[in-house]
Amino acid sequence: MGHHQFDVVGIGNAIVDITSREDHSFLEENDLVKGSMTLVDAERSAALYEVMAPGTESSGGSAANTMAGLASFGSRAGFIGKVREDQLGEVFRHDIRAAGVSFEVLSVSDSLPTARCLVVVTPDAARTMSTFLGVSSQLHPDDIDTDLVSSAKVLYCEGYIWDVDITKQAIRKAINATKAAGNQVSFTLSDSFCVERHHAEWHDLVDNTIDILFGNEAEICSLYETDDFDVALEAVRGRCPVACLTRSEKGSLIVTADDTIEVAAVPVDEVVDTSGAGDMYAAGFLHGYTSEMDLRTSAELGSAAAAEVIGHLGARPEIDLAELAARLVD
Amino acid sequence: MGHHQFDVVGIGNAIVDITSREDHSFLEENDLVKGSMTLVDAERSAALYEVMAPGTESSGGSAANTMAGLASFGSRAGFIGKVREDQLGEVFRHDIRAAGVSFEVLSVSDSLPTARCLVVVTPDAARTMSTFLGVSSQLHPDDIDTDLVSSAKVLYCEGYIWDVDITKQAIRKAINATKAAGNQVSFTLSDSFCVERHHAEWHDLVDNTIDILFGNEAEICSLYETDDFDVALEAVRGRCPVACLTRSEKGSLIVTADDTIEVAAVPVDEVVDTSGAGDMYAAGFLHGYTSEMDLRTSAELGSAAAAEVIGHLGARPEIDLAELAARLVD
Repeated sequence: MGHHQFDVVGIGNAIVDITSREDHSFLEENDLVKGSMTLVDAERSAALYEVMAPGTESSGGSAANTMAGLASFGSRAGFIGKVREDQLGEVFRHDIRAAGVSFEVLSVSDSLPTARCLVVVTPDAARTMSTFLGVSSQLHPDDIDTDLVSSAKVLYCEGYIWDVDITKQAIRKAINATKAAGNQVSFTLSDSFCVERHHAEWHDLVDNTIDILFGNEAEICSLYETDDFDVALEAVRGRCPVACLTRSEKGSLIVTADDTIEVAAVPVDEVVDTSGAGDMYAAGFLHGYTSEMDLRTSAELGSAAAAEVIGHLGARPEIDLAELAARLVD
Repeated sequence: MGHHQFDVVGIGNAIVDITSREDHSFLEENDLVKGSMTLVDAERSAALYEVMAPGTESSGGSAANTMAGLASFGSRAGFIGKVREDQLGEVFRHDIRAAGVSFEVLSVSDSLPTARCLVVVTPDAARTMSTFLGVSSQLHPDDIDTDLVSSAKVLYCEGYIWDVDITKQAIRKAINATKAAGNQVSFTLSDSFCVERHHAEWHDLVDNTIDILFGNEAEICSLYETDDFDVALEAVRGRCPVACLTRSEKGSLIVTADDTIEVAAVPVDEVVDTSGAGDMYAAGFLHGYTSEMDLRTSAELGSAAAAEVIGHLGARPEIDLAELAARLVD
């Protein structure tokens, strides 16, 4: 790859997570589907917050988490997302910059509030998310600086952002600029329900645009409408150059046209909160990939970063991932 | 004690904590005195936040933490404090109610923002705090509902709130109402620098008003202007009915006119963050005290609650303290 100002630039929802621990009964009582991400309106968000236990707030957003992970690995990462000039927006902007991620977070003074995601963590460490997108749903194609986007080796796109038409247009603009500059596009399927909502478009995207695809078992099965992971794996093979399929404690598979690389999960003493596991896997993989490590090593960095983040509450790393990488690659 | 609607009502600053982990060099570079609480203005708060690492937000405030602890023990606790109708105010109000604490948190729509405390946790688990009081400095005597205050067995006052003249008047009003109703007043010295600022008034308060005093070694030494803890201990003896003196890993001493009860600290695997240790000690003690347990058992509940809170980041309990108490008292 030639000279690039950034290793990876991510586009995604700019969200502050409000996390509480709840019993499983809380999910039933509040009609929540365990493990899913549901978009909610302001009213539903407020009503759900009302009945939640005391929480902690921390910056989130899938692609933003991945960029924070990349910066922790020492990659040059940028993020494009939109917050309001309110207190949660201030928190989001502070945290991503303090994590070492570049770019302007776009902030506006007169609009919907900054996005919030109510994250319910059950005793089995599963996280169930209800997201009120707020101003994050107003990322506009005009907000995309194509010069900046095309200065990254790899663009990272969050599937979640496909849910709103205007933000989808913004991401399409970024994808086109990336391709025009001869750079690569990576994409995460985000959530199996999200995949269901965008089947046709995403098939086309995988076949014609994406260079590196990330998805877990449920997501890739949803994309190819099968219950059989092996069927889904063969379905995606060769449709894009690299597909990274994650399987929680069963590790991950890197699928290319003519190879399947199996990488074990890194054992964890106690899984506290699975939030951010997929995001950190993508961070580790993309750090390795843009540093021209081989696919296996890249995936191993992904596994290690995922293991770190599921050992504590919250979706961003608590340790310096560059040190973790140094230990692994030695 | 007769019929009371509440066991304890607390008055204090209504604060959201923004916590980050930093190296010791951060303290020097930013002129912070380790272990202290410093009041800062909006500008200094913003400048310090700018250089802090990514943080997590959670509700705090010393007396508010204690009330959350009391509710977790199963006591009927109330809180009086003031937030603005902004996002951090919403977080504070949600969290204290969700913790099971009653009373209206006063909220105003047009004023300074909700108080924030920038909490820096160093690798030795010490916490250094910079507090921008915001609207919390505007708790007014008119905000004190004396009927409510006097319906509690014990009023709990935070020394910190003495720093602002109008809030001091508010707390004096609450103290007078409590005394007039024949109920008891408890008071925490909060911080040794805070003690220095209010020497004369607090001597008078201890001698004539306070029924239960809480303080750590540094604070009680500061109150009696001595470096010798034993001198301070004898100085406070008999000046108020009960003085609870906490000494971190050395446990605590309950000092009455003619007795000294020594209670060991509860061992902790790893001390992560000492935030809230004093607040939880007070919660445990007051839970026992208002449940008519003896002084030793009350202090043991305090030690157990303090041990729980220093084992994790954040100043409020992560477990049900009523279960902890049940195990201890059995």
